[in-house]
Amino acid sequence: MDLLARTIAQIEPLDQYVIAQAEEREAQLTKPPGSLGRLEAIAIQLAGILQTPRPALRQKAIVIMAGDHGVTAEGVSAYPAEVTPQMVTNFLAGGAAINALAHTAGARLTIVDLGVAGTISIPASLATGANDDHPILIQQPIGRGTANAARGPAMSRAMAVTAVEAGITVAQGEIARGLDLLGVGEMGIGNTTAASAITAALTGLPAAQVTGRGTGVDDQALQRKIAVVEQMLTVNHPDPADPLGVLASVGGFEIAGLVGLLLGAAAARVPVVLDGFITGSAALVAAALCPALLPYLIAAHRSPEPGHTVVLARLGLDPLLDLGLRLGEGSGAALAFGLLDGAARHLAEMATFAEAGVAGAEDDVD
Amino acid sequence: MDLLARTIAQIEPLDQYVIAQAEEREAQLTKPPGSLGRLEAIAIQLAGILQTPRPALRQKAIVIMAGDHGVTAEGVSAYPAEVTPQMVTNFLAGGAAINALAHTAGARLTIVDLGVAGTISIPASLATGANDDHPILIQQPIGRGTANAARGPAMSRAMAVTAVEAGITVAQGEIARGLDLLGVGEMGIGNTTAASAITAALTGLPAAQVTGRGTGVDDQALQRKIAVVEQMLTVNHPDPADPLGVLASVGGFEIAGLVGLLLGAAAARVPVVLDGFITGSAALVAAALCPALLPYLIAAHRSPEPGHTVVLARLGLDPLLDLGLRLGEGSGAALAFGLLDGAARHLAEMATFAEAGVAGAEDDVD
Repeated sequence: MDLLARTIAQIEPLDQYVIAQAEEREAQLTKPPGSLGRLEAIAIQLAGILQTPRPALRQKAIVIMAGDHGVTAEGVSAYPAEVTPQMVTNFLAGGAAINALAHTAGARLTIVDLGVAGTISIPASLATGANDDHPILIQQPIGRGTANAARGPAMSRAMAVTAVEAGITVAQGEIARGLDLLGVGEMGIGNTTAASAITAALTGLPAAQVTGRGTGVDDQALQRKIAVVEQMLTVNHPDPADPLGVLASVGGFEIAGLVGLLLGAAAARVPVVLDGFITGSAALVAAALCPALLPYLIAAHRSPEPGHTVVLARLGLDPLLDLGLRLGEGSGAALAFGLLDGAARHLAEMATFAEAGVAGAEDDVD
Repeated sequence: MDLLARTIAQIEPLDQYVIAQAEEREAQLTKPPGSLGRLEAIAIQLAGILQTPRPALRQKAIVIMAGDHGVTAEGVSAYPAEVTPQMVTNFLAGGAAINALAHTAGARLTIVDLGVAGTISIPASLATGANDDHPILIQQPIGRGTANAARGPAMSRAMAVTAVEAGITVAQGEIARGLDLLGVGEMGIGNTTAASAITAALTGLPAAQVTGRGTGVDDQALQRKIAVVEQMLTVNHPDPADPLGVLASVGGFEIAGLVGLLLGAAAARVPVVLDGFITGSAALVAAALCPALLPYLIAAHRSPEPGHTVVLARLGLDPLLDLGLRLGEGSGAALAFGLLDGAARHLAEMATFAEAGVAGAEDDVD
């Protein structure tokens, strides 16, 4: 069996026995029942994933998948494509938002080049080897950017499978280093266009309903972006019953890598924190390939991209944050890590009413 | 001049020069403008408070004010009043939610007894001195619980001033230890009833609109709680133009302490993170005493208590989280610390486009 099929087959339901134990423990903790709101449900989800009623998120990682998009030739982004490798260099040098936010979250950072169109220059002060080695960069490019999906498929089906399997392998590598919580992010100029096309293809909604301003295009450019997404769908006519075909025809290398990352993490019972619209579109593909993935997913935030709200609703995920974040890079996922840490710790560390000698709620307040 | 008047006089506007510097720096960081959403505005607020365009939140504290309420005799809470000292003991022993959440947030914890009705037993394993000494407990009780505010004033005006000034002194003590971020919390069975009465008195809204289920009373008890709040207002007829009078007649020792804590922190340019409805009602009183306080406040979250939404709207504060939290103890404030850390760090640590050699947005995406 190939790696993708084997990984999908390994994804199991959450542990209902541990969930029942966690719920019983939650009810005995020294606080009014339900008073920690959504934190309680998240803690119980983490317990069911990690198979312990006292979940601990010791080792955390953010993995950023990077790739370029041929469709940028259609003028869909406010930024030129060369920003993708430049931002990868910025990640390596520690100057990007995700560096600050991963630091805050106590998470390590791994960057994966799955097909950046350009050379990633390794900051001289940080290069460890003779050539392109860098401790946090994995280079497994499938190509130098995808083909222009407004003119034909972004990549072949075989390339899509290769990219998904590269993502699974990255997940396995992170798991081997020790991993209790995975946040996923991406970098790729033009990738909100790909995410919109994937979302439209898999939900059947019109392009205009799932296409937004991305990094910040103006009204005129937004209209063109919508037209480009429509063209991507018309040219490739992706079949919603064939998620890998959708991914290949209108997706991107980094989105395919994310699909593999999600599946690979869930197969090893690691909770996955989604970031924004692009990681959400990858989750839509991954959940279409394997619905058992869903209980392993946590939505960090809701972005202003209209397609993201569609994706979250489709996945049945209720995001933890709504702060107008639209950066990507895993920035929202990293911000949610503190909330997840708090969720896990309250369940793991709090005293019960009996342990603390605290009186419970009165049966009758009369 | 007395301590309260002197403290109010010390609260200055935010530093507009530093705010302009921070905004200029924000615009140059390697991300699309505005893409970190509310984090950007929060970072600039922190810069203006801390007077540096690269704010750092190194030393963080959560201070919990505790006190009891005579109005619990009216049957307004799902929990008996003895839970207040029991929970203080639980805080000292490290078994409460706030212990886990402050730990997660990297914040130290201080508990202040401003008038608990009962003996706080110091966990034997943790007592440091011969009597009641505990490293994180400050005991400055104004009384053993307030009087029943449904029958007359909760406390005298002099007691209210003493409690507010005790809060200022606690703030000064925390600042002397080093403090870049203060989260405020409370413990006091019955204190959502006091917070509802304060909110009704200061906003003029009917009791039914600002009174909720607190720790979780049923429908019948909620109706009684509303009637009790109405009675508190009828018996004491607090004057909205006299915030100290409102505090004395329908407030609580811990709420008065919180008022002082907020004012004392702002006077020393320390940002203050509010928790839920009770700390919000304290902020309403404090802002009525000193409107210059407002720019120093950050609302951590929106609780399901209807009065909290009223308070937030009155204060003009937009909370960072909306997770159904209704525990108190500073739990929501502690959860927001990670977001504030992320906000500060992105502004302090990110590279600019020029530093990173990253291309900016194209003037014209054509």
